Amino acid sequence: MGGDYGPLNNIKGVQLAVEELPDDISIVMVGHRGKLEKIMGELDFNSPRVEIYHAEDEIPMGVHPTKALTKMPNASIPVGYGLLKSGQVEAFTSCGNTGAMHVGAMFSIRAIEGVIRPGIASLVPKEHGGYGVMMDVGANPDCKADVLVQFAEIASIYAQHVLKIENPTVGLINLGEEEQKGTLLTQSAHQLLKINKRIKFIGNIEGRDLFNDKADVMICDGFVGNVLVKFAESIYEMLQKRGYRDEFFDTMDYRSVGGSPILGINGNVIIGHGVSDADAVKNMLLQSSRMAETGVYKRIKENLGVNL
Amino acid sequence: MGGDYGPLNNIKGVQLAVEELPDDISIVMVGHRGKLEKIMGELDFNSPRVEIYHAEDEIPMGVHPTKALTKMPNASIPVGYGLLKSGQVEAFTSCGNTGAMHVGAMFSIRAIEGVIRPGIASLVPKEHGGYGVMMDVGANPDCKADVLVQFAEIASIYAQHVLKIENPTVGLINLGEEEQKGTLLTQSAHQLLKINKRIKFIGNIEGRDLFNDKADVMICDGFVGNVLVKFAESIYEMLQKRGYRDEFFDTMDYRSVGGSPILGINGNVIIGHGVSDADAVKNMLLQSSRMAETGVYKRIKENLGVNL
Repeated sequence: MGGDYGPLNNIKGVQLAVEELPDDISIVMVGHRGKLEKIMGELDFNSPRVEIYHAEDEIPMGVHPTKALTKMPNASIPVGYGLLKSGQVEAFTSCGNTGAMHVGAMFSIRAIEGVIRPGIASLVPKEHGGYGVMMDVGANPDCKADVLVQFAEIASIYAQHVLKIENPTVGLINLGEEEQKGTLLTQSAHQLLKINKRIKFIGNIEGRDLFNDKADVMICDGFVGNVLVKFAESIYEMLQKRGYRDEFFDTMDYRSVGGSPILGINGNVIIGHGVSDADAVKNMLLQSSRMAETGVYKRIKENLGVNL
Repeated sequence: MGGDYGPLNNIKGVQLAVEELPDDISIVMVGHRGKLEKIMGELDFNSPRVEIYHAEDEIPMGVHPTKALTKMPNASIPVGYGLLKSGQVEAFTSCGNTGAMHVGAMFSIRAIEGVIRPGIASLVPKEHGGYGVMMDVGANPDCKADVLVQFAEIASIYAQHVLKIENPTVGLINLGEEEQKGTLLTQSAHQLLKINKRIKFIGNIEGRDLFNDKADVMICDGFVGNVLVKFAESIYEMLQKRGYRDEFFDTMDYRSVGGSPILGINGNVIIGHGVSDADAVKNMLLQSSRMAETGVYKRIKENLGVNL
């Protein structure tokens, strides 16, 4: 149901995704059965691999997430998390209220035991091809150094399993390359990252290095990540408005990846963009399927969880 | 003497600037007389409005600023600050060691009494024309809320006098528009900015708003500002490499403004980019001249200084 354009773009995206996904993967649309069936009828869309799971309500965009989740247990987001928690679906994704998606994850499937703070990762296109991953991009505006270190570990596992990058390099976003540069936070995180044996830390990277090949995994607090991602989006939009087309800059389109995974929780969850169109929803679903297939949250749990 | 290409680009920039500057403005080149005269001879450059003030040494790029300034009192940067302090020049600028420029300012002409932390401002081109100003872009990675508030006051005075924006709007760079969003820092800065009568605070702005008209003055800590400016520079370079030309994106070129002023100190100082070419040096000198003409540091002192 979620997203600025309601269920229409979501259903169109499902229609595109089901054609590209392997035959043994099916899609569950969580939402108001009557509303969804009406649109499916209008689109003349029907597939044995697509089913509807009824959810009576929907959480509006912009409302306070905690209140909404408490007051609307039958909204599509909490119902979807229920399906994920009970194992009826292997990944859950929505273009709806971002806060509700994030808070819902923390209340239902919860953080992996041992993970201090789950975060939101964002795929970052690289100038010479492929993608890197930046974490956090908004869930945790204030971070301590040990949280940044865990982001580095978590995002490395994501890069390895979902992006198929062997031994991914990790860079700490900073205002200079020298290790003594930065805030109290990045200075201390640098020292912890340097001695961490689970990751391949290559040192500080700067704002100018986000699109180059210095680091596959780029670590920052959620404040810096959020500002960077939104700045990049605005530049992409300005280039689009000017009709500029280019192989690299086209990959800056959020639609080409379709959403940002929440990492460090007990399940595969992707948050989509409110303005998602059918293509964005399709790519969000393909990415969710890859996360489920690679079992990335289980890999994170194996490597970081306390109950090994 | 400073900059990655030594004095050559500086002298070429002086050559261009002296043609554009009013007749009553002259330029003092601070550096090794023999070296400078040799290059001037090669360029066949001579002007009654350009003189050399001899400085025996030069601080290399990349060395530790405090050590360099202590060990090399006769280097061009400390000698230049000496001229500024004694009033022999009205503005001082260099493409040399950024740290030495910053530390040199603090040790010689010093912060304006009452200014908690001087910062570096950066002109940001606006999509619909003109420039805004972002502060801080690197001098103060860790800031407290009262420091951000002073940046807002200082940068507003700069926008008013140097950019000639009447009643400039101030936005706080944040990860959401709602006032409760953000880090502990931006949340508390928001509350202080809201009740500040000296500025026109319009609330939080996001990463996507840097180039639009929401705010003329954009406030952030030096960490966020530095990462954003370097990210923008890298995008400009990528577009250049692809041969993309556009009226707006061309203004993202650092050369079009030529340098970043240090604000909150007892003098007009601009730090240039190490890679500056002749055009960048020229624009840096023109900007310095505007700063001197408008007496912007005095305006800041009048408005913020404790000894009124």
